[in-house]
Amino acid sequence: MRKKILNYDELVREAGFAINSPTKGCIVILEYGYKIWEIIQRRLDQLIKDTGHSNVYFPLFIPESLMNKEKEHVEGFSPECAVVTHGGGVRLQESLIVRPTSETIMYETYRTLITSYRDLPLKYNQWANVVRWEKRPRPFLRTTEFLWQEGHTAHATQEESIEEVLRMLNIYKTFIEEYLAIPVIAGRKSDNEKFAGAVATYTVEALMRDKKALQCGTSHDLGQSFSKVFEIKFQDKENKQQYVWQTSWGVSTRLIGAAIMAHRDDKGVILPPLIAPYQVVVIPINNLVNAEYIVRIEKELKDKGLRYVIDNRDESAGSKFNKWELKGVPIRLEIGDRECERQTISATSRLGKKVNTPINEFFNSIDSLLLNFQNELFVRATEFQKTNTFDIDQFTEFKNLFGQGKSSGFVKAYFCGSKECEDTIKSETFGVTSRCIPLDETNGEGSCICCKKDVNGKKTIFAKAY
Amino acid sequence: MRKKILNYDELVREAGFAINSPTKGCIVILEYGYKIWEIIQRRLDQLIKDTGHSNVYFPLFIPESLMNKEKEHVEGFSPECAVVTHGGGVRLQESLIVRPTSETIMYETYRTLITSYRDLPLKYNQWANVVRWEKRPRPFLRTTEFLWQEGHTAHATQEESIEEVLRMLNIYKTFIEEYLAIPVIAGRKSDNEKFAGAVATYTVEALMRDKKALQCGTSHDLGQSFSKVFEIKFQDKENKQQYVWQTSWGVSTRLIGAAIMAHRDDKGVILPPLIAPYQVVVIPINNLVNAEYIVRIEKELKDKGLRYVIDNRDESAGSKFNKWELKGVPIRLEIGDRECERQTISATSRLGKKVNTPINEFFNSIDSLLLNFQNELFVRATEFQKTNTFDIDQFTEFKNLFGQGKSSGFVKAYFCGSKECEDTIKSETFGVTSRCIPLDETNGEGSCICCKKDVNGKKTIFAKAY
Repeated sequence: MRKKILNYDELVREAGFAINSPTKGCIVILEYGYKIWEIIQRRLDQLIKDTGHSNVYFPLFIPESLMNKEKEHVEGFSPECAVVTHGGGVRLQESLIVRPTSETIMYETYRTLITSYRDLPLKYNQWANVVRWEKRPRPFLRTTEFLWQEGHTAHATQEESIEEVLRMLNIYKTFIEEYLAIPVIAGRKSDNEKFAGAVATYTVEALMRDKKALQCGTSHDLGQSFSKVFEIKFQDKENKQQYVWQTSWGVSTRLIGAAIMAHRDDKGVILPPLIAPYQVVVIPINNLVNAEYIVRIEKELKDKGLRYVIDNRDESAGSKFNKWELKGVPIRLEIGDRECERQTISATSRLGKKVNTPINEFFNSIDSLLLNFQNELFVRATEFQKTNTFDIDQFTEFKNLFGQGKSSGFVKAYFCGSKECEDTIKSETFGVTSRCIPLDETNGEGSCICCKKDVNGKKTIFAKAY
Repeated sequence: MRKKILNYDELVREAGFAINSPTKGCIVILEYGYKIWEIIQRRLDQLIKDTGHSNVYFPLFIPESLMNKEKEHVEGFSPECAVVTHGGGVRLQESLIVRPTSETIMYETYRTLITSYRDLPLKYNQWANVVRWEKRPRPFLRTTEFLWQEGHTAHATQEESIEEVLRMLNIYKTFIEEYLAIPVIAGRKSDNEKFAGAVATYTVEALMRDKKALQCGTSHDLGQSFSKVFEIKFQDKENKQQYVWQTSWGVSTRLIGAAIMAHRDDKGVILPPLIAPYQVVVIPINNLVNAEYIVRIEKELKDKGLRYVIDNRDESAGSKFNKWELKGVPIRLEIGDRECERQTISATSRLGKKVNTPINEFFNSIDSLLLNFQNELFVRATEFQKTNTFDIDQFTEFKNLFGQGKSSGFVKAYFCGSKECEDTIKSETFGVTSRCIPLDETNGEGSCICCKKDVNGKKTIFAKAY
C-alpha cells in the first residue's frame, strides 16, 4: 500500500516540528523544531558577535506615538500590528504596539546613547519575538508571532553603513548555504518590495522544493531616514553635528521552515546534518540480545560529539524506520543480532545509501559520511534551483510558465522596476512578484518584460513567493 | 572630595547594566547587563537539559477564555495583565492576554499531547518574555516586561511531581549560591504568598545589601488544579483514566538585579567572577611603551579562556579605575613602564587585595585568584545574612526592628500561617511579609508571633521584600 504524500503543513505536524496553538495564527514550536532553532541561534549568534556586535534587549511594547514617527514605516506596518489598549486593569492613555520590528523603540534610545563620533559605530543585536498579524498563517513561514534576531547599527559614514548592510547579507548567505544546505540568491529588492522606511532592502532568496521562492533574510540600508526623524546626531571630529547612517537586518524561525521545505522528498523531511537535532538514530532490532553492543555504539557516538537518539520504544522496526525517515534524521543505524555477532554496523543514509562495515571502520568514517551528506544535499538543491530557473524575454512565455497559478521556479528577466509593471506582472501571473536583482548578475541590455521600455543593467528574479 | 554613594537605580544606570526605556515600566537591557543574562542562561539551560527537560516555545498571546479557566489563577493575574484588543487593523472578537506566565496556554495543548502513561513525564521549558503590569518599577527587580525561563511538567503520580518541584528548587539554590555567590534560604511560601492556582509554592529567598529580601526563584506544586480544569488525562497501565500531576518553576532577569544588590559597596558593584561579563580589565598606563607587553597579556588571558577587556580609551588611569570599580570587574591589571620592564603584573582585586608578581607566576595563579574571589564573595554574603537574621518571639521587638519602615534583615519567628496574622504583621511593620518556612529548619514548639496561638512546627522567615 502506497503511503499518502504529506503536504508541508502536515509534514511539520506529523514530524513533530510544531503544532497549531490555541492562539489564532500562532504555532507551538515543539522540541524537535526548537532544537533546530537553538542550533541556528548558537552559530549565528557567534557570527554576529565575531563581527563586533553586542546583544541587548529592548521592550516588547512600543508607545503608539513612537511608532508613528517615521511615516513610511508606520504606513507599512500598521495593518499588521497588535495593539494593547488595556494594562493593569485600566484603559491606557496611549496605546502600546506589540513590536512588529524594533526600529522605532530602539532608535528613540539611540538618540540618547550617541553623542560623539567616539560612540560610533553602535552595533546592537537582539534575539526576540515579534508580532505581525497574519491572515493566512503557515507554520514557520508566516505566523502572527515569530522568533528572530534583529541587528540595528549606526555609523558615522554612509560608506561604512553600506559596507555593514552587505557584510550581514553575506553572513546570512554563507550561513544558510553552509548550515541549511540551501543555495540562496543575494540581491536587492525592488522599491515595491523594500522594507517600510528603508532606502534599500537586500535579501537572500531561496527556491523551495515546491518551486516557490522563500525570502530567507533581509538587510536594510536605512540611510538617514530614521536618524533624521529620531534626531540621532553625533559630533564629528571637526565638531560638526551630523546625522548617523543606519542599518537593520534579521532572520527568523522561518529558516526552520526553509530547511524543511528545501530538502523534502515523498517520504518526509531530509535534514542537513549541521542543523539536525539528531544526526544519527540507532534502532536496535532486538532489545534483549544486543544491549551491550548498543552501549558501545552510544559511547562512540558520544565521544564523537554527535547528536543522536536511540529508539528503544516498543514498536516494530519498520514503523521506527518510517518515523525517522519522516523526521529526516540523516543516518540510521540498524543493529540486530547479525551486526552484534560480527561487530559491524548497518547504516542507511536518508539519501538512500547503505553500508555494512566493521564498527571501528564505521566510526572512523562517520564524520565524512555526515559531511558528504551535507554536501550532497547542497548540490542537490543547487541543481534543483538551476533546473528551475528560466531566462525569459517574452511576457507570454512568462505568463504561460505560471499558468493556472502553478509555481514554476525562478524567472530571470529584464524589468524596468516601476510599480505599474510590478502590479501588472503580479495580476497577470496569479501573484508572481519580483524577488530581487541579484548582486552577482552581470550588466546587460534588454527591454522590460512587461512595458518593453529599455533596461540597461541587471536582470531581475521573479517567482511565486511564500 | 568624597564621591556620592549611588543608590541601586543609579548604580544600574551608571554602571551600564540597563537604562530606562521609552515604554513605561520597561527597561533597555544594555550589553553589560545582557552579557550576565547570557551567562546565566547558558549555565541554567544546561542544568535544565541535564535533568531531562526539553525547550519548546508557546505563543505570547493567550485567548481570554483560556486565561479565565482556572479561577484562582485568573483572579491572581488579571490586575497585572496587558490586553490586546485590536489586531490586523480590526477589533478582535476575543481579547488576547499578553502572557504573565504560560500555564493556561501550555496546558490547553498538554491535553492533546498527553493521552497515555507512555507520554509521561512531559518535561518542557521555555525561555521567554512575560508581562506583568508594574506600578512601581525597579530595574531588573520589578519591570512590566521581563525575561525568564518557565518549566512546566506533567507526571503520572503526585510523588513524582513533588520530587520534581523540589529538584528544580534545589537546582536554583545551588546555581544561585555557586554562580551568583548569594546564599539563599529554600522554603515554602505561606498560603497568602503562594502562586495563584498552586497547591504549594516553594521559593529561594536572598538578603540584599540593603537588608531587604529578594525572592530569587519559585517552584510550584500545582497538584491537579490545572489538570482537572484543562482535562489533562492519561490512561494508566491498568487502562484507567487519571489526571496528571503538574509543576511549574521559573527564574528571571531579576537574578541580574540580585547579583548587583547582594554584593555592592560604596564604590559600586562587585560581580562574582562566574557571571561577570569581564573577569579581568587590563589598563595600560602608557599606551606607547608597553603595546607589545599588552599583546602578550592578552594572549595569556585568551589562552586561559577568560572574559576580559582592555581599556585603551583616551582617559586618565584614575578615571578608568573608578569606572571599572563601579562596574564591578573582579580583577584589574595595571600595566605601566615598570611592569613592562620587569615583566610583572600589578593586579588589584575588586575586594581590595593587591599583588605584583612575575607574569608567568601571575597567570599560573589567576584561576585560583578568581576562585578565591568567588568564594570570598559568598562567605561575605553569608556572614552578612547571618548577622542580619534575628530570632524573635515578641511582636513588640519585631515591630521595633522595622520601626519607621526601615529594612533590618530576616526575622525568624513562630507564625500560625493565617491570613489575618499575616495582614496584621504587614500593617504594623510598614509592610513586612512572610518570606518562607525554610525547608531545613528543625521542628519546634512556640506561639505565633502575632496571635500567640500554639504553633507546632518550623519557624517562618519574615522580611521587607522587593
